[in-house]
Amino acid sequence: MADQQFVKEIADMTKDFPQWYTDVVLKTELVDYGPVKGTMVIRPYGYEIWENIQKEMDARFKATGHKNAYFPLFIPYSFLTKEAEHVEGFAPEVAVVTHAGGEKLEEPLVVRPTSETIIINMYSKWVQSYRDLPLLINQWCNVVRWEKTTRPFLRTSEFLWQEGHTLHRTEEDAQEEALKMLGVYVEFMKNVLAIDVLSGTKTPKERFAGAVDTYSMEAMMLDGKALQSGTSHYLGQNFSSSFEVKFLDSDGQLKNPYQTSWGTSTRLIGAMIMAHGDQRGLRLPPKVAPIQVVIIPIAAHKGGVMEKATEIKDALTKAGIRTFIDDSEQSTGWKFNQWEMKGVPVRLEIGPRDIENGQAMLARRDTHEKFAMPIAELETAIPALLDNITETMFKQSSEHLYANIVRCSNMDEFKAAVDNGKFVETMWCGDEECENKIKELTAASSRVMPFDQTPCGDKCVYCGRKGIKRIYFAKAY
Amino acid sequence: MADQQFVKEIADMTKDFPQWYTDVVLKTELVDYGPVKGTMVIRPYGYEIWENIQKEMDARFKATGHKNAYFPLFIPYSFLTKEAEHVEGFAPEVAVVTHAGGEKLEEPLVVRPTSETIIINMYSKWVQSYRDLPLLINQWCNVVRWEKTTRPFLRTSEFLWQEGHTLHRTEEDAQEEALKMLGVYVEFMKNVLAIDVLSGTKTPKERFAGAVDTYSMEAMMLDGKALQSGTSHYLGQNFSSSFEVKFLDSDGQLKNPYQTSWGTSTRLIGAMIMAHGDQRGLRLPPKVAPIQVVIIPIAAHKGGVMEKATEIKDALTKAGIRTFIDDSEQSTGWKFNQWEMKGVPVRLEIGPRDIENGQAMLARRDTHEKFAMPIAELETAIPALLDNITETMFKQSSEHLYANIVRCSNMDEFKAAVDNGKFVETMWCGDEECENKIKELTAASSRVMPFDQTPCGDKCVYCGRKGIKRIYFAKAY
Repeated sequence: MADQQFVKEIADMTKDFPQWYTDVVLKTELVDYGPVKGTMVIRPYGYEIWENIQKEMDARFKATGHKNAYFPLFIPYSFLTKEAEHVEGFAPEVAVVTHAGGEKLEEPLVVRPTSETIIINMYSKWVQSYRDLPLLINQWCNVVRWEKTTRPFLRTSEFLWQEGHTLHRTEEDAQEEALKMLGVYVEFMKNVLAIDVLSGTKTPKERFAGAVDTYSMEAMMLDGKALQSGTSHYLGQNFSSSFEVKFLDSDGQLKNPYQTSWGTSTRLIGAMIMAHGDQRGLRLPPKVAPIQVVIIPIAAHKGGVMEKATEIKDALTKAGIRTFIDDSEQSTGWKFNQWEMKGVPVRLEIGPRDIENGQAMLARRDTHEKFAMPIAELETAIPALLDNITETMFKQSSEHLYANIVRCSNMDEFKAAVDNGKFVETMWCGDEECENKIKELTAASSRVMPFDQTPCGDKCVYCGRKGIKRIYFAKAY
Repeated sequence: MADQQFVKEIADMTKDFPQWYTDVVLKTELVDYGPVKGTMVIRPYGYEIWENIQKEMDARFKATGHKNAYFPLFIPYSFLTKEAEHVEGFAPEVAVVTHAGGEKLEEPLVVRPTSETIIINMYSKWVQSYRDLPLLINQWCNVVRWEKTTRPFLRTSEFLWQEGHTLHRTEEDAQEEALKMLGVYVEFMKNVLAIDVLSGTKTPKERFAGAVDTYSMEAMMLDGKALQSGTSHYLGQNFSSSFEVKFLDSDGQLKNPYQTSWGTSTRLIGAMIMAHGDQRGLRLPPKVAPIQVVIIPIAAHKGGVMEKATEIKDALTKAGIRTFIDDSEQSTGWKFNQWEMKGVPVRLEIGPRDIENGQAMLARRDTHEKFAMPIAELETAIPALLDNITETMFKQSSEHLYANIVRCSNMDEFKAAVDNGKFVETMWCGDEECENKIKELTAASSRVMPFDQTPCGDKCVYCGRKGIKRIYFAKAY
């Protein structure tokens, strides 16, 4: 019955996944469309998820020695042009301020699409000696990239993100940092968002504009498409030489430092929705769920029910669990559907008979299991239950990922796999021409070359020449 | 000696307060100038203060029932013009995006100077019934106001802030909210930033553009000038009628809801510096200090010193105290000066003789007192010491404020007081003409009309007509 009801409201995910996504993000009040095309409003229920993501992520950045700072939104247009590849990549999608304070500006200002240029410009003032390195800074902010086709969380003209920008004395130090932060992201995906990812190196074609190497993690959505969920770039000396940043090394030589940058964004919320959702709506990983346990009083008007519900709420809140009592006048059935749609990990029902029995009924959003639990055990058992839900959801994500990777050794297999919504694992000759042709033929783009480069074949899947790179391809958001 | 050294580096605050401020904010690495005129970079030491302010403030907003959300940076120009006073106030200082994605935009976009218009536009979609009210939302974000004269933290083209925007069923509810949030700000100033303020109502001339009433808190800086440190506005139905927001009330009538907005910004960091600093540099209130206790090992090379210092650091960190060991190769004297300049509330010295005696030497930044404390007591005594420092600093702030308010009944007294760097408390007839003339004559502007309107005289200090408002005037930042 519940499913029937929601089939009417939320599009069938097996038939129209994009419409399912739109229905879910709007109906659960995560987001709304802003008045300017391509912009989004992150509503309180969505923003609380972002706050939880920030809290978890920020603690990881600080534990790895980074500090936060804030750099200006407006970048002089001339900065963008200093690094040749960077301007080529970003110039087409920037928003430009031409007037301010009632006057035309002498130089137009770019609304930051990313902050490499303005940050390296500041670093040039702050770094003199090898003693000033490494410089490990992160920024939480908004960025603007003018996109033609937009979708809430996945691709919007403005989005929220974090961008780490670090400077190092040697190439090795910078490479180590870039990989370490990718590792932080992958661990976060597993333990916080409960999503398994493929990580590795991007092909030169898919690199960040201005990077020497781009490392990425790619998640598989329920429709089999890939979502690039976080990237970490080794920038070498590209920006530090263009912006003339020099430090005096211990050998008395002036050198350009080596740089990294790395970022994740509100796109992670999109990843979470499309990796975990089901026909009933959201399934939120407990670590980021605004409400972890929703308490539904049954026959709330009966003596003692609301008192017991409140008592349980207070005990759970004290145990650090985000708990909410739905004491609205809606029917119990409506409440069940509503909070399932909103993805709350655990529903707790408490009625007169439960109270008599000294227990509460629990329902897991991830597995739909329902079971009774003694009220006296809730405080200690629910934190463990929430951890178990995270683990179970990660396992589901991991199984879905690996069940949908097809190893292919020719283009017929490749095309069939992509058409079936699979990721392709194959070998590639390293020629960008083949990468382009594959995309033309199949609409699949290269995702990553995994760090484990054990060959899975010997020939390039497209041209038949020697395959030198093990690589994943998929259609992507 | 220490003072002598810093006299050379930091301008004499009694002779050139603005230069003292600039020297302090730059040398302590709170901030740097951005490449675009009027912009600032908030460096890690400054940003950590902001993070602590955010944490304290955000907890207060949530405790009073508010949730955070995020609204777009870009506002259609037409929105700004819908509320007549609002556009008059903000149009001259907005930055305008005219091009994006390589094309000229059909309608120019304003980079938000404040978000009343875009938020009320969204609220019009979300509010249908009285059951949807109150709507209590806050936003943490950046805003842009193109200013001619700028100074780090106090007035910059871009700054960080929070803006609360609420909708209510009745005028009474909205007025209560506006005053409640001013109360939250005042309590925050006292218990977190240790600053006493004057609070009250702004004159119509000094109101927010579009408000019915503006409530403000005004802090006194060490040079006797006022700094408006936070405002809360009762907006009535001004925006909700312009934007046609209507809700169905329980009486079956469609009505425009009543609105408030309230904000504080990175300007609070400027307030903190100029309310508490001294010739040696910053004095940071413990609740926001990035480092609350700095440990200086004395004769660190001697056996056991670093071990004991680390042991103390671990114990204090575990007790929730932000602690840092300065084990750099600088001299002890340099370290003392450095951390005094950086405003760390407590310095803890530990050397071989202290260890023998089972004690550490503590020095308070606020009072310059030095005393020994048994090592075994540090964990429990230092949290209490930090609270005592907050209280002491608040008391100093309060004494400074009330010692520098002069009650005046004529313009000779008024002018003399202002020229002496005092706040003036007086009576005013309520005529804007008098307010303007006073500003022309003395450069002092009206700050607030206190909530306690017990008359302090009977005539308007300027025109001699009946004084109907008790009011504070001061030169202001």
